[in-house]
Amino acid sequence: MRLRNKAGASEELLQHPTIIIQNAESRKGKWHDVFGNNNPIHIEVGTGKGKFLTGMSELHPDINYIGVEKYDSVIISALERIQEAGMPNFKLLNEDVINLTSYFEQGELDQVYINFTDPWPKNRHEKRRLTHERFLRMYEQVMKKNGEIHFKTDNQALFEYSLHSFSKYGMILNNVSLDLHKSDIEGNIMTEYEEKFSRKGMRIYRCEAQFR
Amino acid sequence: MRLRNKAGASEELLQHPTIIIQNAESRKGKWHDVFGNNNPIHIEVGTGKGKFLTGMSELHPDINYIGVEKYDSVIISALERIQEAGMPNFKLLNEDVINLTSYFEQGELDQVYINFTDPWPKNRHEKRRLTHERFLRMYEQVMKKNGEIHFKTDNQALFEYSLHSFSKYGMILNNVSLDLHKSDIEGNIMTEYEEKFSRKGMRIYRCEAQFR
Ligand SMILES: C[S@@+](CC[C@H](N)C(=O)[O-])C[C@H]1O[C@@H](n2cnc3c(N)ncnc32)[C@H](O)[C@@H]1O
Ligand SMILES: C[S@@+](CC[C@H](N)C(=O)[O-])C[C@H]1O[C@@H](n2cnc3c(N)ncnc32)[C@H](O)[C@@H]1O
Repeated sequence: MRLRNKAGASEELLQHPTIIIQNAESRKGKWHDVFGNNNPIHIEVGTGKGKFLTGMSELHPDINYIGVEKYDSVIISALERIQEAGMPNFKLLNEDVINLTSYFEQGELDQVYINFTDPWPKNRHEKRRLTHERFLRMYEQVMKKNGEIHFKTDNQALFEYSLHSFSKYGMILNNVSLDLHKSDIEGNIMTEYEEKFSRKGMRIYRCEAQFR
Repeated sequence: MRLRNKAGASEELLQHPTIIIQNAESRKGKWHDVFGNNNPIHIEVGTGKGKFLTGMSELHPDINYIGVEKYDSVIISALERIQEAGMPNFKLLNEDVINLTSYFEQGELDQVYINFTDPWPKNRHEKRRLTHERFLRMYEQVMKKNGEIHFKTDNQALFEYSLHSFSKYGMILNNVSLDLHKSDIEGNIMTEYEEKFSRKGMRIYRCEAQFR
């Protein structure tokens, strides 16, 4: 199953509309209907192969999770995980984060996760980083008041930049950890990249940034 | 000279009133007179033996520096450095930082340095940390608008706490470095503690926190 040729991914994705939600614009303001309950909704932007949200949705059955991932060839692995484990509270959105406000109503979401997002190290690519101000504005809009971004990365420069970006936006930094796997935080679910990098002995950085 | 018995420190300190400024309350609003010029004034809180400000005052002759240190037995080493090197732009204040607003007028200072300040790791001692909100309020009061705190430490937990404290106060974090000695920052002057800890291979954390 996992070894399936990824070229046929796009077609395969369309075959599972209860997991990979289609016509996302038409769901704006109606995500609680998609899940069939009124539980809080958390999203992960750039969810990759979905390991993190698989673990989170099993650990927290009373929270609804949506993984946003733009690449067909990657999100298909997340689809397979959901098919195998069958969590009703984990859905996927095969879209670009840049259009987030087209898919979610103001205040519709409770929390945003950003894990090991692409660092875009060159200054001229700053605007592409998912912790850039233009993305923060979107997250703020789609989240409830005082919503939080939970952010993890192995990339030192991206973390330094993001602390700047969050604070410049006026956000409060809570539970900062500069070496997550040596701290006493509980209930940490590892992402694919987190496993890879922490196995190499690299530090994992984490913080929670809260809108005012 | 350096081996002098520190017990006689208190008396010795009084012998050099042009370097260790006495009756600090009476200088409030008049620090430019003390230096005899209108150059910007930067202070270091908890200056210890004065290595950092000795280097800074030599590197930046057009900035006036004041080192605030409460312990006689420590500040005497800073006095000796100034006597030896003879910088006119480096003065000392043998006082507790808690009384800062008694010594400086609103907006009288341009910048505050906090280097390797005591971490006070226990929660119940949080208020003693020099990056606690009650100190931030004082720094804000004595500095010009948009003043900056330049902060260095080897202590991971203190740095994590301080990022929280600065951001909660609404400050902007600039030039965050999570491994100062491996970054390409220029003109870094090492403090006593910085030399000691970096020689042991420990990471040095640094940031600039700016008031809005
Ligand atoms: C480096 S991977 C990390 C994956 C996973 N979060 C983890 O921690 O293992 C980043 C993922 O974010 C996705 N991504 C990056 N920018 C995106 C965007 N603007 N919209 C949607 N997905 C994006 C990429 O396709 C990639 O799968
Ligand atoms: C750990 S030492 C660091 C000295 C120096 N800044 C360095 O980086 O090497 C901290 C110094 O701050 C001083 N200090 C701590 N709290 C203070 C306060 N409230 N007022 C004045 N000095 C203080 C201590 O006496 C001590 O000399």
